[in-house]
Amino acid sequence: MIRNDARTLEELVAALPPEVVITDPASMDAYRWDRANDPGAGVPLVVIRPTSTEEVQTVVKIAAANGTPIVPRGAGTGLSGGSTAVHRGIVLSVDRMNTIEVDPVTRTVIAGPGALNAQVKAAAAAHGLWYPPDPSSYEICSIGGNVATNAGGLCCVKYGVTTDYVLGITVVLADGRAVKLGGPRLKDVAGLSLMKLFVGSEGTLGIFTEVQLRLIPAQKQPTTLVATFPTLDAATDAVLAITQKMRPSMLEFMDQATINAVEDATKMGLDREAAAMLIAQSDEAGSAALEEITRIEEICNASGASECYATDDPEEGEAFVVARRMAIPAIERLGAVLLEDVGVPLPRLGDLVTGIAEIAARNEVTIATMAHAGDGNTHPLIVLDPTDLAQQERAHTAYGEVMDLAIRLGGTITGEHGVGRLKRPWLADYLGEDVLELNHRIKNALDPDGILNPGSVLAPAGATPAPAQATLSPEGSVEGAEGSVLPTPGEQ
Amino acid sequence: MIRNDARTLEELVAALPPEVVITDPASMDAYRWDRANDPGAGVPLVVIRPTSTEEVQTVVKIAAANGTPIVPRGAGTGLSGGSTAVHRGIVLSVDRMNTIEVDPVTRTVIAGPGALNAQVKAAAAAHGLWYPPDPSSYEICSIGGNVATNAGGLCCVKYGVTTDYVLGITVVLADGRAVKLGGPRLKDVAGLSLMKLFVGSEGTLGIFTEVQLRLIPAQKQPTTLVATFPTLDAATDAVLAITQKMRPSMLEFMDQATINAVEDATKMGLDREAAAMLIAQSDEAGSAALEEITRIEEICNASGASECYATDDPEEGEAFVVARRMAIPAIERLGAVLLEDVGVPLPRLGDLVTGIAEIAARNEVTIATMAHAGDGNTHPLIVLDPTDLAQQERAHTAYGEVMDLAIRLGGTITGEHGVGRLKRPWLADYLGEDVLELNHRIKNALDPDGILNPGSVLAPAGATPAPAQATLSPEGSVEGAEGSVLPTPGEQ
Repeated sequence: MIRNDARTLEELVAALPPEVVITDPASMDAYRWDRANDPGAGVPLVVIRPTSTEEVQTVVKIAAANGTPIVPRGAGTGLSGGSTAVHRGIVLSVDRMNTIEVDPVTRTVIAGPGALNAQVKAAAAAHGLWYPPDPSSYEICSIGGNVATNAGGLCCVKYGVTTDYVLGITVVLADGRAVKLGGPRLKDVAGLSLMKLFVGSEGTLGIFTEVQLRLIPAQKQPTTLVATFPTLDAATDAVLAITQKMRPSMLEFMDQATINAVEDATKMGLDREAAAMLIAQSDEAGSAALEEITRIEEICNASGASECYATDDPEEGEAFVVARRMAIPAIERLGAVLLEDVGVPLPRLGDLVTGIAEIAARNEVTIATMAHAGDGNTHPLIVLDPTDLAQQERAHTAYGEVMDLAIRLGGTITGEHGVGRLKRPWLADYLGEDVLELNHRIKNALDPDGILNPGSVLAPAGATPAPAQATLSPEGSVEGAEGSVLPTPGEQ
Repeated sequence: MIRNDARTLEELVAALPPEVVITDPASMDAYRWDRANDPGAGVPLVVIRPTSTEEVQTVVKIAAANGTPIVPRGAGTGLSGGSTAVHRGIVLSVDRMNTIEVDPVTRTVIAGPGALNAQVKAAAAAHGLWYPPDPSSYEICSIGGNVATNAGGLCCVKYGVTTDYVLGITVVLADGRAVKLGGPRLKDVAGLSLMKLFVGSEGTLGIFTEVQLRLIPAQKQPTTLVATFPTLDAATDAVLAITQKMRPSMLEFMDQATINAVEDATKMGLDREAAAMLIAQSDEAGSAALEEITRIEEICNASGASECYATDDPEEGEAFVVARRMAIPAIERLGAVLLEDVGVPLPRLGDLVTGIAEIAARNEVTIATMAHAGDGNTHPLIVLDPTDLAQQERAHTAYGEVMDLAIRLGGTITGEHGVGRLKRPWLADYLGEDVLELNHRIKNALDPDGILNPGSVLAPAGATPAPAQATLSPEGSVEGAEGSVLPTPGEQ
């Protein structure tokens, strides 16, 4: 196919209402990056903000006919560059498709992909129901983006991840057809599990225009434990001992650098000397919650905790959870940040956390690590001064070394944020060539012309084996974009 | 490719230990059918009982080179004909690949596909852990078959289905390569969700040689409620009212025909006059279980239950669950059985159950309906006298009408048993042409020569649109196999 972007633009303008089509460069600028701030972001041809499945179909049909790539976009809070604009491509933002309809009888919600996770939660709560998945960014991230990345969060340790709650999606395929996969049936095994394949596909297989999610009855008020530890090992030992026997509704970890950043921001009196802190919650019924928290406290003490504090006051407990949720913004105050998302099998959590500390020391950079500890999913945040080019290079080296370490420990390069563009160079190392080739076969089967989010997750068809566009290379150097560092979102 | 079965046989005999290769027709006979007893079953070329991933790879490579189809097989308890032998094909039985290894630290189990579900449960229980999915046939069905069909069960209403517990699979692809998808990482979003695609693929995309499953802490002792109702509507009204507010760990339904068949078999004193019976359990902690059961009892009474009986004695409660589990064998005593597996969105459960009763009356056949009511997943069992050809024809008409009804009500033709060969003629009606075409695209991408379980789920490549082999047609008549009825398993 001969790509004809000019014709794409012309046809889009002719086919869609004017308020849907944005071509003003200044207005388009807000749609070039997600929170990963990929320095390799292209300048889009056009930004489209459709309001219906039919409009999305119109866009895809025109793009497909003219070979113009499309980058789908939710709220732009992605952390792996999955919504980075590509040069002269279409950015398709679903932010205006944000209706929410709860059906309390089927205990499901149908939402537009642009609805925010927090809005879905609130709509469910109005019926005494709960949508569990809770990325730390739940107040600002879109449900469509959650489904596209199979997002996780804090409650996943007990309640699972996004895919466990997706019952149905309406998806516009690469040829512009719209199909409904799944629906309000709680069990359905008729045909291949296509819906599950689309969940987590990061916009590379189709564009979601509606999602149907399972809700469960409202969570019970949790009881909370906060425990501090003198060493990383003591904390990760406690995590292992807890997860072997129990299913807390939250089991979060913060290291010393994270504790201090949060304490700087909150002045809530956290122990700045502690090597690590765990926050655990139980939402069991009645007195069982306190019993579970008491058992967790006993395990923490047996693992050498320096201090434990339990509370069944929901507000007091929530204050600690808020502290954990604000860890990323608190660390972003310290400088520019490279945000990691590596996970390991639980028994290797201690090796990962101590290995990350070694990588930080060796590269002379600050790495603040927080973790959804009960899932073995960590977020090491590498802090860097954007004006210090030597440190910047060491930070990028550390970024790659953390992923290499995770792979060596049998872990994954991304537990919940997605591969996007930033982590694509490491995907082959993680998956191996055979599984990578299977990924490409599926991509080719569903998007043979490669117009959907090209370069995200998988190298575009025909690309050289090396990463084809400006991004972090596996060696940790910054390529393209005039050598700019990845800035923090506030700087964009 | 020119198919050469003779060369396949020759090469298999040369490449594999003799005890792995079965060619004796009498011995092969046991591998021709699963519990669906498809009258269209072919006579296999050879039955292979491998003991390792490498042996499976050898089989697939030889089959692929010579164009010989392979039907993978677990314990042969499938209810949709997914393991029906195809003419002159290989039956690959994984029954000897049945190792089980529990890792209590990662809280996972690695099992050979031939291990029985009950054996996996027992191995987990030895470590105080629990593998929840519990098909009624859990004592005789294989875990590989469970993963291949994304099997359900009784506890799914609270604990989800098989796919929710699969963390990793080793799969031999159609070209003989073996790949590992997933692993002991509780969160992992690196690359497309291939593992989830393979779960439920019924042997059409690859052959599982190892599965890794998530375990959770042992279930608490449940409290049980049994409620009987004078009408079907009263019972399904109660189901809706319960599921809107609560998450019982079991919510099962039996209609009058089922109650009577079970009472015939057990003489446990069930109310033969009741139109329907519900069995609910709560496994909440401590006193919360009885509180939940009390609320359920209140709802049942408000919906017009004629009698409610609650017990926190686990053995007494289990007796009712055993009664429910033996419902299928109890009904099989009444005659040959056509077993259905239709599911609907919960608000349509009442319409489905009463609609099935109307179909039974109109066609003058007995249909006994039991249901995983909390999931909207029903099992109508159509009973027929194999010697009464007119009744047989009416039964097959009813079989199709039940699926047509489910589709009209927004439901699925199979909630947990799979499409296999028996339900394939209805798949297009259910999925629609676009989604069916997507299924074929994925199948073609992963098995371009169509050697894996051809004719199961999807029509073989090049087949005419009408069902290509002897099975039930959508019109309900029996084709092929000399017009024989589907016999009950005991008759095989």
